[in-house]
Order: sequence, then C-alpha cells, then structure tokens
Amino acid sequence: MSAFKTVRGMRDFLPEEAKIMRYIEEKARKTAKLYGYKEIITPVVESYELVAAKAGEEVRARMYAFEDLGGRKVALRPEFTASVARLVATTMRNEPKPLRLFCVGSLYRYDEPQKGRFREFWQSNFELMGSEKPEADAEVLLLTNTLMRTVGLKNYTFKIGHVGVLRGILSSESLKEETQNHVMQLMDKKQHEEALGIVKEAGASEKCLKTMQRLVSLRGSNIANILGEMEKLVREYEAASEAVKNLGEILRLVKESGEKLDITIDAGFARGLEYYTGMIFEVYTPELDIALAGGGRYDKLVELFGGEPTPAVGVAHGIDRIMLAMQEQRTSLTTVEEKRVMVIPVNEGLINEALKISEMLRNEGIAVETEVMRRRVTKALEDADRRGISHVIIVGERELKEEAVILRDMQKKEQNEVKIKELAEKLNLSGA
Amino acid sequence: MSAFKTVRGMRDFLPEEAKIMRYIEEKARKTAKLYGYKEIITPVVESYELVAAKAGEEVRARMYAFEDLGGRKVALRPEFTASVARLVATTMRNEPKPLRLFCVGSLYRYDEPQKGRFREFWQSNFELMGSEKPEADAEVLLLTNTLMRTVGLKNYTFKIGHVGVLRGILSSESLKEETQNHVMQLMDKKQHEEALGIVKEAGASEKCLKTMQRLVSLRGSNIANILGEMEKLVREYEAASEAVKNLGEILRLVKESGEKLDITIDAGFARGLEYYTGMIFEVYTPELDIALAGGGRYDKLVELFGGEPTPAVGVAHGIDRIMLAMQEQRTSLTTVEEKRVMVIPVNEGLINEALKISEMLRNEGIAVETEVMRRRVTKALEDADRRGISHVIIVGERELKEEAVILRDMQKKEQNEVKIKELAEKLNLSGA
Repeated sequence: MSAFKTVRGMRDFLPEEAKIMRYIEEKARKTAKLYGYKEIITPVVESYELVAAKAGEEVRARMYAFEDLGGRKVALRPEFTASVARLVATTMRNEPKPLRLFCVGSLYRYDEPQKGRFREFWQSNFELMGSEKPEADAEVLLLTNTLMRTVGLKNYTFKIGHVGVLRGILSSESLKEETQNHVMQLMDKKQHEEALGIVKEAGASEKCLKTMQRLVSLRGSNIANILGEMEKLVREYEAASEAVKNLGEILRLVKESGEKLDITIDAGFARGLEYYTGMIFEVYTPELDIALAGGGRYDKLVELFGGEPTPAVGVAHGIDRIMLAMQEQRTSLTTVEEKRVMVIPVNEGLINEALKISEMLRNEGIAVETEVMRRRVTKALEDADRRGISHVIIVGERELKEEAVILRDMQKKEQNEVKIKELAEKLNLSGA
Repeated sequence: MSAFKTVRGMRDFLPEEAKIMRYIEEKARKTAKLYGYKEIITPVVESYELVAAKAGEEVRARMYAFEDLGGRKVALRPEFTASVARLVATTMRNEPKPLRLFCVGSLYRYDEPQKGRFREFWQSNFELMGSEKPEADAEVLLLTNTLMRTVGLKNYTFKIGHVGVLRGILSSESLKEETQNHVMQLMDKKQHEEALGIVKEAGASEKCLKTMQRLVSLRGSNIANILGEMEKLVREYEAASEAVKNLGEILRLVKESGEKLDITIDAGFARGLEYYTGMIFEVYTPELDIALAGGGRYDKLVELFGGEPTPAVGVAHGIDRIMLAMQEQRTSLTTVEEKRVMVIPVNEGLINEALKISEMLRNEGIAVETEVMRRRVTKALEDADRRGISHVIIVGERELKEEAVILRDMQKKEQNEVKIKELAEKLNLSGA
C-alpha cells in the first residue's frame, strides 16, 4: 500500500505534536494581541506572479507552481509577506497607518527534506506597515523576543544585519539591481568568495572589494564595537553610512526598552528574499542550525504591488521549528492537564442513560468520553486506565433507580455512589 | 496591476472576518475537548491516489491536482477523511480503539464560485474510529449539535438519511458498485429521474424501481412515521431493512440523550463522497441553501488504505459557511472586548521611554500599541480615538521626572498623572 502514505517532504503531526503546534500558535496570537496586531487570513493558493515577484531566485526555483483547471498560473505561497503586501496595496489600501497585521498558517517550498526543514511548514507572521522609523524595527524585534520567551525557549540569540550597508556600497559602485540580487543570494548562502567575484566582475573599485571583504568577516556581540568598525569601514559610502546609523538607532531603542535580547551583529548578513531594504534578523538556539524566525524591513514591496509607498517591517516565526527547539530543550508546556471523564453503561439497555449523563456533564464544561464499544465494564475500565482517564462514571440499573451512578476516581482507585444531579459539582471539586 | 489580486475562487479574510473564523475554530476545538477528540494535523498536499480513491466523480474532477517538482502526482486535499483514514491505517494503526480524532484547516475544490462556496474553504473535522455501534453515530450528531449551539446559531436543522437503504436495495438487485456509485452521485444532485433511469438500464426489477421511486420522495420530521414507512417499503430487502433499523436506533439514542435536535429524515438522501456506508447527515439553516456541516458512517475506508477493518463515523463542519450563517443571523460573538492601550511619547527623545513602558505593561498582560509614526500628540490622539483605543499613556519630560506619565481615559475624556509603577494596576482596575 505504498501509495497511501504522506508525500515526500510532507508530514502528519500526531496528537502530542499537534498540541505543541497549537500551543505555539496560541502564544503567537496572544503576542499579536499584546502588541496590537490584527489577524487576517490569506489564501494558500496565490497567483504565481505575485509570490514570484520578489521571492529571490532560490525560493522561486522551489515553489509549488502549477496551472489550475482554468489555466491560471498559480503557486502555493512560499511565504506570507507578498500576500499581506498585496492586501495592503489593494483591499486595505485606505486603512489608516500604522497598520499592524498578523497571520498564521502553512507555507510550501520544495526544499530537500532535512531536520527541521519540510516542504510544508508553519509560520506566524507579523507585519507593521506605514512606519519607516527605527522604533518600528525595534517593535518587531521585541515582539519576537516576547514570543520566544513566552513559549519557554532558553538561550535564543538574535543575529542582526542591515541590507542597506552592502546594497548601499554596491549602489554607489553603480551595480545593477539584478547583479546586487545575485551578490546578496550568494552572501545568504555564505558563498562570500563567489559573491566578491561577481562584484569584481561587475567592475567595482578596489576600495569597494576591500570594504566588502572586511565587512563579511565582521561580526560579534559587542554592539558598540562592531557598529564602530562598520561606521569606519563604510565612511565614504553615504547610503551605507546611513544604514549603519539606522541599525545603531534600532539597537539602542531595543536596549533601552529594558528587555534583555542576546544580539550578535553580522555585517555580512543577507537573507534569501529580495524585498528587504533595511534591518534584517534571524533567531537561533544553540541546539539547531536553522533559524527559528527571520524578518526585516522592506520599504518597496507594497508600492511594487500597486499600493501607496508604504515603509514596512515584519517577521515570520517558524512554528514547527520552534516546536523542534522546544523538544530539544525539553520545554514543558504551561497548560493545565484537565479532568477527563469516561461514562460506561453496564449493559446495552443503559446506553441512552450514559449518553444523557455525558451530554449533561459536557453542558457543564466537563470533558467526557462515552463508552461506544459496548465492552464489559472491567474491559472498559482497563482501557480508561491506559488512556489516563481521571474519573469513570459507571451507569448501572440499581443506582439509576435512586437517580445515582458510581463515580470512580482512577488515581485513588476509590468509588462512591453519587446522585446524578450532584455529579458535575463533585467532579469540579475533585482534583484533576 | 491586475495580476496582484487573489486568484479566482480564493479570498482574504479581513480582521473582522478572521476573528469570526478563529472564534468558530476555537469553539470546534473546545467541542473536541468536551467529547475527547485529540487533534492531529495532516498535510494540505497529499498523493493524488489517496484523495482520489473514494472521493466520488464530482469531487475527483474538481481537485487541484498537479505534479510536484519530483514528478509525483499530488493534489490539494479536497476533504479530511481520506487523510485521517490513511493515518489510522498506517502510523496510528496500533492505537487502541475507539480513536477519536479532530482536525481543522483549509481544503480545496475547483467549484464554480458562488455565495458560500469558494475554492479554498475551511473545516473542522471529527472522526470516531473503531465503533460500529449506533451510539457512535449518535455521538457525532450530538457533538455537531453542540458546536452549532455553542457558536450561537439558531434554527439549524439536521437532514438525515442512510446510504445502506438505497445501496442495500441496489446490492440485492446485483447492481455493480460502479453503477451504484453513479446512481448515488445522481441522487446527490437530486437528479432522481436520471438515477432511476440508470437503475432500470442495469436490469433492476420493477419492484426495485417502484420502491426506489417511493423512497426518494419520502421525507419529513415525524421520525416515527417516516421510519415506519421506510420499514414497510424495504421489507423484502434484508440489508435495507437492517439499515432502517440502524437509523432508528441512532435516532432513538439521540432523542434519549436529552438534547433537542431538529431532525428531518430524507429516505432518498445521498452525499457526493463514495465512501459512506451507513447513516449520513447534513446541517442547514433557513438563511442558506448550502449545508453547514455534513458527515456519516464509512466502515470500509481504513481497510481500503491497508489498515485493519475499522468501522468509523465522522463529520466535517464548514467553518466559513458557519461564519456566513452567523453573519446572516447577526449572531454576536461572546468575546469580551478588551482594554487597548496606546503609548505616545511627546517628543523623539522619549521614544525609548515609551517603548520601555509599553514592554512593562505587556509583561503584565496588557495589550499596548506604541506610537511609531512620530506624530504630534494631538494627531496621535485623534488616531487612537478612531481606532477605538480605550486608554492613552502620554509620556512627557515633566511627568517622567517624577516617574509618572499622563493616563487618559478615551471614553470619559479624563486624564490624570499616574506613577509608572502603578500604571498596570490602574489599567487593570479601570473598565475596558
């Protein structure tokens, strides 16, 4: 039956994992609420042209693209930002700014499957539209920190860079945008030699090459030092100098917010998507070599999609990757294990009574599983024990005559006769 | 910029609608918990062979099917049940029965877009695996009722039938499964004449045709009457008689559960999916002519996918359709409108303080939007008013010297100086 399994790169989440996924999603939604982001839902199927526009060569080549039955070229979204920018450029174009939008869902890329990297993956995505100010960038860093902390992760670090530094230099040297994109793609893959080769080929000056060379090896967590070095290196490039100053402003605001973020600046940092124009960042934990989150500033995308010029900054958090990091760190969820009740009729004639009692308890908000296999009571009790049921209600003729049932505490292995009308109260009083 | 819009049949949910969608999803998850269903997450992209196997001709022809970059024939899932049955036939094959599984997500069919019918739609899906007993069928009806009631819908009705009645007759007349499927497809589309034509052509007896004819026009909400009529009509068909008896048992248990379901029996009722073997049902409200939910028993599917013979019954609730029904009925959500606070620095030099206060309040669980546009206070206040912000915190030099800020109640239009360390308490005490 080999056909009947998941497609390569796709996966199922069984109950234990699905629970963690929904837990992270809930924390992301809570974070959205705390920072004033409103949720929207955009489709998985988008026009190819939209999602390809600024995805970058890497992502573009790995999209799930196909023709629908009407002959439209479509693609499964490989990321959220293009969809949100589309919405802000069209339907939501008249919404007052700043516009804070949140979405969560699944995304698709035909990557080679490996640890933490699947072809269907899940993200929560935050976009802050309309502000070009460094406090907007700081907010996106801070909310990401809040989410990582809230799910219970430890030792996560922010890797931060600024696309404006490298692009600023390349623009001063009059490199075409296409060439710049190619250089940034190679930088993203840490192919610094190759990237510098392209820059040289494109006719950049010796000074440019030297500056680039030094930038790509410049990183560290002494923020003042690294920023100082960057400033010196790019002194003769105006746009790049502005970028360094902007990065400094953002990091100052983050620091002065009082939140303690563990930050490494990486001057040669680039990301695969082509739309970034300013600060970019990723989040890592020591246990995994893939980013748990990534984002940055993209001031031109809404405009590209036909909207008003709209500066924007955003972040995507990899929900399944965060789950993996939590599993590696053995993070425990802060949910309360709730009472689980099972109702067992002693014979077939009492199934209706069992259903009735089950419904009554559910209407009181108590989680109830009704025995639906018509097993003998002893057998059903064994099953309840294996499933971690906390309380069993046994519905028998004799007790029913007195409008009562047997209530069994599975942990304490004690049982008592309880009036049906007192069941909900009794269950609510007893511990889980 | 015509390319940059949603693909035909796809849609965006703006914040107001996304809120209702998530509200229904949350109620579905709560229902799952109340009835002991555990959540799983299965992929949107499945093998074509899997989802096509028992989808029925209608659905099969409208699937989003394509080859992935590795040349695999895949499809976007048109429904959940095949995926859940796959999982139960493979990874979860050794889980003890009954197995109660829940999932929620988006599905894809290339239908002609119309009111309430989009090409991407959303469902919550419940499957009860392992019990052939009528109490299992009753449970699925009851939990559907709980969900509909919990979201606040009024006047919804259950349309209930049993595939075993018609199929029982057709099997007695030795009609091939393929022919039966064709007949059921036509019945589903209410093309009764055409369906009977096929039955006649296949060589069925005069008695069969007459029985079928009378069955397809037999429906009503006097359950005892309709069941009695059905029983009489199919008396000479053993399997069909068993089916009527089974339907009667299910409906008796539902009735005796104490929940008041508004039920219509439709003896000629069929559903598009081919895998149903027993009771089938749909839920309607008077405002819409599309079903809000649909489900039934499918005892052969897990086996077909290579698993142990596993009787099963399930239901899918159309989340976006339920939303539409709620909008038609003007159902109000039972969520509490929460306090929304905005923090505004009076000048650029105080942005860091504004961020710090914002973070402090969020750490106390208060939802805060920080001013990130560097607008003048009057302008920012106007904006806060328009957005329905309940409280504004104005961060100024003078108050800061005394470790205080201005707290403005936007409804009452009152403002006071408040110590920063007392802010959270003050905000928590004041009404939303």
